[in-house]
Amino acid sequence: MKKVTVYITLKPGVLDPQGKAIQESLQSLGYQEVEDARVGKFIELQVEEGPNIEERITEMCDRLLANPVIENYQFDLEGVK
Amino acid sequence: MKKVTVYITLKPGVLDPQGKAIQESLQSLGYQEVEDARVGKFIELQVEEGPNIEERITEMCDRLLANPVIENYQFDLEGVK
Repeated sequence: MKKVTVYITLKPGVLDPQGKAIQESLQSLGYQEVEDARVGKFIELQVEEGPNIEERITEMCDRLLANPVIENYQFDLEGVK
Repeated sequence: MKKVTVYITLKPGVLDPQGKAIQESLQSLGYQEVEDARVGKFIELQVEEGPNIEERITEMCDRLLANPVIENYQFDLEGVK
């Protein structure tokens, strides 16, 4: 069993209203030092080992996990460089 | 300016319906090898450097960013161990 962590972020030009709300809330709580906040998500998958695991993860990202129009993704395979 | 990344996950015992939906969707797309999926989020903050930065980030997490009843968090300060 391998642990795969997929990190999904909005592309740089894409507005992030949730991040903006977090930044403004932090500032209004007194954390003036916070100049920007961007929110992303990550998905931890437990995957049975098999052939072509990297290709299959890439396919999962493109087909379901990320929206390639507005999001970038990257993933880490535990124990694999 | 420092980049701080806060990772927020559901605590182990907490049900994750979004993760469950992802796992089932992946299986129905033919990725039978996916045995579990859990979803978390991360927040990238751009923070001006100042004193007590780690204490202040911990405070932000406890007060606003995470829900300590059901979520765990950890954070990385870029360039600081």
